[in-house]
Amino acid sequence: MAGPSGYSKVTQGDLGWLRSRLGPEDVSTEEYDLVTNSLDAFPGEPHLPEVVVWPESGEEVADVLRYANERRIPVYVRGAGTGLAGACVPVYGGILMNMMKMDRLLEVRPVDFQAVVEPGIVYDHLNRLLEPHGLFFPPDPGSSRSCTIGGMVANNASGLRAVKYGVTRDYVLSLRVALPDGRLLRLGANVFKSSVGYDLVRLLVGSEGTLGVVTEVTLRLRRLPRARYTFAAYFDSIEAGVSAINAVRQEGLEPAAMEFLDRVHMDLISRWSGIVLPTHECMLIVEFHGYSRAGVMEEAEAAVSVIREMGASRLEVPRTDEEVQRIWEARKALYPSVTRATPSPITGDVIVPLSKLLDVVRKSYELGEKYGVRTGVAGHLGDGNVHTNWLPEGRDTDSWRRAMQANRELVEYAISVGGAASAEHGIGIEKKDFMALQHGEALELMRRIKSLFDPNWILNPGIML
Amino acid sequence: MAGPSGYSKVTQGDLGWLRSRLGPEDVSTEEYDLVTNSLDAFPGEPHLPEVVVWPESGEEVADVLRYANERRIPVYVRGAGTGLAGACVPVYGGILMNMMKMDRLLEVRPVDFQAVVEPGIVYDHLNRLLEPHGLFFPPDPGSSRSCTIGGMVANNASGLRAVKYGVTRDYVLSLRVALPDGRLLRLGANVFKSSVGYDLVRLLVGSEGTLGVVTEVTLRLRRLPRARYTFAAYFDSIEAGVSAINAVRQEGLEPAAMEFLDRVHMDLISRWSGIVLPTHECMLIVEFHGYSRAGVMEEAEAAVSVIREMGASRLEVPRTDEEVQRIWEARKALYPSVTRATPSPITGDVIVPLSKLLDVVRKSYELGEKYGVRTGVAGHLGDGNVHTNWLPEGRDTDSWRRAMQANRELVEYAISVGGAASAEHGIGIEKKDFMALQHGEALELMRRIKSLFDPNWILNPGIML
Repeated sequence: MAGPSGYSKVTQGDLGWLRSRLGPEDVSTEEYDLVTNSLDAFPGEPHLPEVVVWPESGEEVADVLRYANERRIPVYVRGAGTGLAGACVPVYGGILMNMMKMDRLLEVRPVDFQAVVEPGIVYDHLNRLLEPHGLFFPPDPGSSRSCTIGGMVANNASGLRAVKYGVTRDYVLSLRVALPDGRLLRLGANVFKSSVGYDLVRLLVGSEGTLGVVTEVTLRLRRLPRARYTFAAYFDSIEAGVSAINAVRQEGLEPAAMEFLDRVHMDLISRWSGIVLPTHECMLIVEFHGYSRAGVMEEAEAAVSVIREMGASRLEVPRTDEEVQRIWEARKALYPSVTRATPSPITGDVIVPLSKLLDVVRKSYELGEKYGVRTGVAGHLGDGNVHTNWLPEGRDTDSWRRAMQANRELVEYAISVGGAASAEHGIGIEKKDFMALQHGEALELMRRIKSLFDPNWILNPGIML
Repeated sequence: MAGPSGYSKVTQGDLGWLRSRLGPEDVSTEEYDLVTNSLDAFPGEPHLPEVVVWPESGEEVADVLRYANERRIPVYVRGAGTGLAGACVPVYGGILMNMMKMDRLLEVRPVDFQAVVEPGIVYDHLNRLLEPHGLFFPPDPGSSRSCTIGGMVANNASGLRAVKYGVTRDYVLSLRVALPDGRLLRLGANVFKSSVGYDLVRLLVGSEGTLGVVTEVTLRLRRLPRARYTFAAYFDSIEAGVSAINAVRQEGLEPAAMEFLDRVHMDLISRWSGIVLPTHECMLIVEFHGYSRAGVMEEAEAAVSVIREMGASRLEVPRTDEEVQRIWEARKALYPSVTRATPSPITGDVIVPLSKLLDVVRKSYELGEKYGVRTGVAGHLGDGNVHTNWLPEGRDTDSWRRAMQANRELVEYAISVGGAASAEHGIGIEKKDFMALQHGEALELMRRIKSLFDPNWILNPGIML
């Protein structure tokens, strides 16, 4: 079986070719560029690329791939570097292809509910450009201010609103993709459903840059909801908070977001973000979206009533947009607050069937206790996605190794109940060990699909597979 | 490149092996069984299989595949045979694997919104079993009374409610799949989102039995809506009816169904189904679903107001469940009425971006006129899916050939505007010619993926690829 090996180093001749093809301003071997492209948000070992390039067109991307493939030089693909799993870290060196210069919104088609974008466009920026059309691209990852659409496609990213709107994979209609042999293919069709052979678009989404490099994305969009309603609920036990989530779902309500934060995280946010949250064991943030204000209000009232019944000790109903924004700012301050508290947190990303939500939250604390690591639980619990943050005292310490083991056992538990090792952060270098655990024999099929698209394994070698 | 060739005929020895493995009652070479398994709902040439088998477990399926693969005998997989594209027609003979004995609902997990089923279970039957749990599997194909979940998975089927709820591919969480080498793999995880490598589940869904045989499906379910509202609108011009669809979508309304029927189809239904529809150029059937009755009513009222503005000449607002049911019965009588009127209709299944809806409807009539074939247009126009029915005077007649050409030109038009040759009926044998048109160079990648899963091309050879 093929795999990552037999690579060439980048030579002066290669640099000359890159400069002549891309222009000297789009090729750099300066230390500053190598270092800033050596890591993403995963607190692992940095790996320096040998050269950083900034392609400006699909044709440039394709030509670099063809050249690198002939020369057996690894190519890593990077957006904004906000990934949490190290999926753009150039572990075998080679060429780091930074997509941030391909950042245009090429076309909005309001009647079609579609937009065509280059991969380097930033999520929040795209949504600001779509707002005058009354449209948006829903997935809303925590890193929305910085992350790129290309990174979201590579990673099948999602976030706060996936519980209602789904994930990136649900919104990618077609792709322009450069393959290692230098071809530029169009995959998919710009329609909402199709039955025309194998779904290569959805195969590419979530493939973490290992099959091809996306150079253009046609996204499905949604209409911005006319009515919204947000509230927060506080609980004096974890059991009450988690059970309330399932009670809301069982009632048949479909919130646009249903976020969970435990006391550990609430304290970190209060301490580091400047937004002070009240002291309770946990909280939920619940949001409803819809066309009809009356409908949204009825849904929110039903949710409030269910949540009260489940034992909420306090409800916070914001009356102004600013108050709503403050609640969401608190939630979005989660990850920055965690990294201020601990430079090397280990962020779990398991997802389980909803009936196992309480078990996986309890298991998180049990494992934290067993391994003597401070543990906080948060996440998009409305869809089963639990982010357990293990907070060791620095990287490569004994407590860090214990935290890694706790996280591993949590992943094993999640998989044993039909869940997944990663709901939205991806595999990268961080979770490679979990692939065999997750997929068993099917992993070999994935490796063969990889070899089919990329026979010399030049694309993101060492990542995911 | 590999392809369908070099097959062995089924021998007495093979029949003996099949009888000993499956039991003699699950193996037949009787003419009745061969003939009834030689066609689906596509009015093409029948092809007799050499033997029909009815496996009763995943292990039996896997063993038959391993045996057939070693012997190079083609294996075709069949559910209820309601497919419209001939995707289970045994064009190379061999073993016809009829999945109708594997028809159990294995488990319902209400808290998880999941059900585990065998592939032979019928769609409407499954939904009846789910109803006491307040749950349903939404896609609702026109053949819902007879079609199986396995067939829907193979075909990525959808139907009347796809505009709100999506297609089969959106609801398959995990699969148990038998591969030609005799392995039984589990693919996917029983959770609502994941980022754990290549999405093999979505690759299998819609692969029309060419990659593996699905032996168990874990479906995501939805809560039955508490509130529903259905109405019909009649128009005196095609333009008004089609434009109303886009106006409703642009308003930001998300109907659970938005069906279009033109006068040709309305007349056929009135004549053959016993449900008499009024005489207008076209009609829409619109349904809203939701949790809140007030919300559903506000959405329906907004839709009615938009539709009036677009020039509807008549609105029909049913007041009882029976009246609602009568409207839907009229819609579901469409295909049976068409086949009563013409034994060999050619049913188009293109899908286009919403801005091209009116163009593709007009194009249908223009082509009908150009080729002198009676033409009706219907479909799930709310999501862009247009079913043009060409009604020639019998199969293999001159008008049939002209209808085929008209359909081909419509497909070419749909693809030229970013659409697809098939939204939900699949490729089968009917639309094989359109695969190259749709995918260009990407078709070769599909053929290589096929060879990777099924090196000897024993699974459904001649279908799709």
